Amino acid sequence: MRKLFFLLTLLIPRALYAADGSELWLRYKPVDAEVAQRRTIRLQVNNEIAQLAKKELDSYWSGSPVELRLDRSVKRLKEGYQIKRRGSDLLVTAAKPVGLLYAAYHLLRLQEVGADVQNIDIEEVPDFDIRILNHWDNLDGTVERGYAGYSLWKWDDLPKKISPRYERYARANASIGINATVLNNVNASPQILTPDYLEKVKALADVFRKYGIRVYLSANFSSPKVLGGLADSDPLRKEVKAWWIAKVDEIYKHIPDFGGFLVKANSEGQPGPQDYGRTHADGANMLADALKPYGGTVMWRAFVYNPTQEDRAKQAYQEFVPLDGKFRENVIIQIKNGPIDFQPREPFTPVFGAMDKTQQMVEFQITQEYLGFSNHLVYLAPLFKETLDAETFSRGPGSTVARITTSSAGGSKKTAISAVSNIGEDDSWTGHHFGQANWYAFGRLAWNHQLTSEDIAEEWICQTFTGATAFREPVRQMMMDSREAVVDYMMPLGLHHIFAFDHHYGPEPWGDMEGGRPDWMPWYYHNADTTGIGFNRTKSGSNAVSQYKEPLQTAYGNLTTCPENLLLYFHHVSWSHTMKSGRSLWDELCFRYDRGVKEVREFQKTWDRLESYVDQQRFEEVQSKLKIQTRDAVWWKDACLLYFQIFAKMPIPYELERPIHELDELKKIKLDMKHHN
Amino acid sequence: MRKLFFLLTLLIPRALYAADGSELWLRYKPVDAEVAQRRTIRLQVNNEIAQLAKKELDSYWSGSPVELRLDRSVKRLKEGYQIKRRGSDLLVTAAKPVGLLYAAYHLLRLQEVGADVQNIDIEEVPDFDIRILNHWDNLDGTVERGYAGYSLWKWDDLPKKISPRYERYARANASIGINATVLNNVNASPQILTPDYLEKVKALADVFRKYGIRVYLSANFSSPKVLGGLADSDPLRKEVKAWWIAKVDEIYKHIPDFGGFLVKANSEGQPGPQDYGRTHADGANMLADALKPYGGTVMWRAFVYNPTQEDRAKQAYQEFVPLDGKFRENVIIQIKNGPIDFQPREPFTPVFGAMDKTQQMVEFQITQEYLGFSNHLVYLAPLFKETLDAETFSRGPGSTVARITTSSAGGSKKTAISAVSNIGEDDSWTGHHFGQANWYAFGRLAWNHQLTSEDIAEEWICQTFTGATAFREPVRQMMMDSREAVVDYMMPLGLHHIFAFDHHYGPEPWGDMEGGRPDWMPWYYHNADTTGIGFNRTKSGSNAVSQYKEPLQTAYGNLTTCPENLLLYFHHVSWSHTMKSGRSLWDELCFRYDRGVKEVREFQKTWDRLESYVDQQRFEEVQSKLKIQTRDAVWWKDACLLYFQIFAKMPIPYELERPIHELDELKKIKLDMKHHN
Repeated sequence: MRKLFFLLTLLIPRALYAADGSELWLRYKPVDAEVAQRRTIRLQVNNEIAQLAKKELDSYWSGSPVELRLDRSVKRLKEGYQIKRRGSDLLVTAAKPVGLLYAAYHLLRLQEVGADVQNIDIEEVPDFDIRILNHWDNLDGTVERGYAGYSLWKWDDLPKKISPRYERYARANASIGINATVLNNVNASPQILTPDYLEKVKALADVFRKYGIRVYLSANFSSPKVLGGLADSDPLRKEVKAWWIAKVDEIYKHIPDFGGFLVKANSEGQPGPQDYGRTHADGANMLADALKPYGGTVMWRAFVYNPTQEDRAKQAYQEFVPLDGKFRENVIIQIKNGPIDFQPREPFTPVFGAMDKTQQMVEFQITQEYLGFSNHLVYLAPLFKETLDAETFSRGPGSTVARITTSSAGGSKKTAISAVSNIGEDDSWTGHHFGQANWYAFGRLAWNHQLTSEDIAEEWICQTFTGATAFREPVRQMMMDSREAVVDYMMPLGLHHIFAFDHHYGPEPWGDMEGGRPDWMPWYYHNADTTGIGFNRTKSGSNAVSQYKEPLQTAYGNLTTCPENLLLYFHHVSWSHTMKSGRSLWDELCFRYDRGVKEVREFQKTWDRLESYVDQQRFEEVQSKLKIQTRDAVWWKDACLLYFQIFAKMPIPYELERPIHELDELKKIKLDMKHHN
Repeated sequence: MRKLFFLLTLLIPRALYAADGSELWLRYKPVDAEVAQRRTIRLQVNNEIAQLAKKELDSYWSGSPVELRLDRSVKRLKEGYQIKRRGSDLLVTAAKPVGLLYAAYHLLRLQEVGADVQNIDIEEVPDFDIRILNHWDNLDGTVERGYAGYSLWKWDDLPKKISPRYERYARANASIGINATVLNNVNASPQILTPDYLEKVKALADVFRKYGIRVYLSANFSSPKVLGGLADSDPLRKEVKAWWIAKVDEIYKHIPDFGGFLVKANSEGQPGPQDYGRTHADGANMLADALKPYGGTVMWRAFVYNPTQEDRAKQAYQEFVPLDGKFRENVIIQIKNGPIDFQPREPFTPVFGAMDKTQQMVEFQITQEYLGFSNHLVYLAPLFKETLDAETFSRGPGSTVARITTSSAGGSKKTAISAVSNIGEDDSWTGHHFGQANWYAFGRLAWNHQLTSEDIAEEWICQTFTGATAFREPVRQMMMDSREAVVDYMMPLGLHHIFAFDHHYGPEPWGDMEGGRPDWMPWYYHNADTTGIGFNRTKSGSNAVSQYKEPLQTAYGNLTTCPENLLLYFHHVSWSHTMKSGRSLWDELCFRYDRGVKEVREFQKTWDRLESYVDQQRFEEVQSKLKIQTRDAVWWKDACLLYFQIFAKMPIPYELERPIHELDELKKIKLDMKHHN
């Protein structure tokens, strides 16, 4: 009977097995016995991670024999590796065991994409020391801004029951070089630091360790008060410091390689040092001091803003730049890529490059809170690279965000890059099969930010679907076009924050609530009136441009030199303003929205044409999501154009497809989004 | 104060006054005093209708002086008229007073469209004696298949309270030559023949009379039993005959010019002579005999079918043709234009021309039961003319349906044409402003079936909106294109009866109900399977083609000669069959559905471009309806293609826009249509 079952298992076609996307880009085919005989994988050291590297190659590598060599003296490699040909063998050298594991995945990736490794001679060194995912997972199993089902972490089952997905999660991350994870939501429950939960965290850390992944936790700044029963959590109070020192000690007893804390403090209602008249530096440094003996790190978020008269876009800069030089060496300021909040397009946050004596890191968002959740196909590598490649001019030309965040200001400081995960318990991990590409792209860019979006897409397509040219090329093109498409149909020309309240899914440029925070209201950002539209952040307005270094300050601040894709972010522009296309602003806005819809319809055609290249389940699931995306694109277009038309008082250019919705009906749409927690 | 109010009234711009469409095409401007002085309208006879003709011209005619002359000897004119120039005057001659009224409206129409009347010399004789609207209005105020609000007839208020809309209704009808109306639903309540209701009917008839309009009533065949307390309503029973004779006498005492009865018998559950083993002729003749002394007419519907094994399309023919020659002279068989039921396209009903010794009339449907209700802009004149111009070949070439129904088989028989009204209590009368055009077109074609659809559209546009070329021409084109558009996006290539159950609004090609009548199920009509689609009505199928005369029988019955726009009505065709376009049937079906959607989007553009020519209310109301129509067109396309694709197993051609709906979701749509009663 058991034998029969085994045979039946063999008969199940691979394509069916893989059809739910649960394999991600790791669809390696086991090598057959004959190949395994021929090519040996040699490894001298008895280290768990290194053994894993050997095991992966043993199972899946069908090329030349490989020697895995650990040479701790080649420190410049950090967690990287060399791969060279030596006669008929490949010689892999790494300074750390995890370097061998990354090298193994590198080889398997080359194999999957069909690369020629005959004359291979590469040296790979990661650009960032810490390549970390932020999970906004709550302890009740929900995920804030999670659109792929409930949390992967089954807190109630832990530490006793270990889901096999924990290891698969770790393997997937390791395969793209991710080496750290924050398990819980930045809106953190103090409970995560209780002994019970630390046991659970330890269980996960034990799984992740052999894949080179360190665990971090989001810490609630009020934990000493809430958990320790202290009178408050004032960072300068001795008892508070002592509580944290003891807590950190307790953590490291469980998890010797614990990474550190991520903290959202004094932001959107979270507690923080300002509650006690202390600064962000006071708060961060207290935690840093507790972590320092163990080599732990504090990632302190710069996403702070208050409902004051001041332009929200300016507030992080105003709060943090004066603190430059006041942070401990093991504090990294974690800064969202844009000044507002993960919009389809924003300029880079000017805090980047404005704190010479402070280590900074980017926070990207992989989960598409403002980009159609897991319903819209939006390939984010171009968005990530737009920020990483952005010139800050803080240290002259070439001072890109990537350069600023990859170069430590001083000796022992670590560099880091983070992104909010889009991972949940769905079979596909990310809800949308193409959401996997964004997880993949973040990992690859965290390793090497100079990779092109195209190349990353191509790698991912070959591994996740097929390398057939007729499939790969149109899909890559679709992915490359997708970010501009979403900008077009949601918020073109620098529009931002005009999404629906609370769930953030659909359009709501008319959004308003009596007594609501102005900086949560769309009108605060678009400022549409009969004269024009956009947020005046020039000198005559909020002067947020002044936070950018020259020549950006002048370029952004000038209507004629401001890039048009950020125009309405920096300027309130007349409806009749002539754009570079020769169209008026109003016409151009209409044209962009319309173009976005057309693009998504093209994506549908592209995908449908490729049906024969994809297993049925994934084909149909992506097809279905593209239908939603097209409907949503039309919804966004109609909602925004019909609303802004009230002010523009001009017709939508008659050559463009007409709205099919009534503004009044669109205003009535109130979604009960289940995946928003 | 009263004077102030009067002045204010004068200040309200005409455009605003007219903005709700309640004026229909009767937007004549009162002539000013100076003009009225200059041009006299002379009339010698003191007849109420003739006086009304004079009054209309007095109020609105701004051209030459007119003499209205009644000459009862010119019998060939029937209800028609001559208009000739005589010196500086226009001389109008008619044999009946109503002819003068029609002539007055003719002159006003010429004036509105800006025609040159300098050398006018016309003689107009109506093609049909009885030009009648059928109202499917129920006594409870609802309207079966009515989409313009509740019934115009306020039965509860009648006979005491006379709505001013009754006269406006009569005037509108007279202005286009309609001279008869059936007030109540063919699914008739016996109650209409009670003394109380006859008082109400009399009140309406009294209003309509001076516009030359006669009232008819739908009679329930069971009335003798229900109202008279007889044991049954067997038409051969003496007491039943006596009851009807007495009832008719009672009616004529109230309404001396009562027109007669419309009867739906033994059809869809209505009672009829077959309940007693009698024939349709037995039933119709009994009523005809009762009406004959008063000159009344029986319109007996041929819309009969039963859930037998026989093709529903054949049943009317099978029931009625054997009865040819058995009907009284004052019976007219009222036959729906197509054999099924007012579909976007059907062939003509083969009963036309198959009963040489029986007077026949067409029943059209103006209310768009199967053409998007009052939501879709569909100009029906081309549909009406398609039937009227259809060659039956019953008396050789030239035996069109129009010729058959306009030529009485014998001396005193009357000719008639009917249509189910789209009129309700809505301000716009017809729900959709362009629905007015279909009421208008029916009237005009009932008068002169040789008018072109284009000319009727043009007349209507000039009177209802404006004659400006830049408006008139694109709107006329839109109207002319609209019927093929609805065929394309609903039921192209001869598809029929694939609409949703009960309300008939949306698509439901998958429709099925356990135990339901097969001939009410879409699958009965489309027969989609893996080999192909369509209803085989050739010799190898139901042989409905045999009911058509040669050469039609052969033409329809042959796959290669059957008109493609009726292909799936007559044939079950292979999905891969090569169409005249060179495309396969499946591809052609996709292409047609897609073309329908594109057409409606073009209508939106056309209309939006014309905003400056239309008052705001009507502009926006039509714009809004066009949005619905576009959404519905996509809905129809997606539903039908995704459903039929299950059988065709071929992709929608990749150059076509992709579906945006999921079939499973579309199947869940259950509408609660309020206007369906």
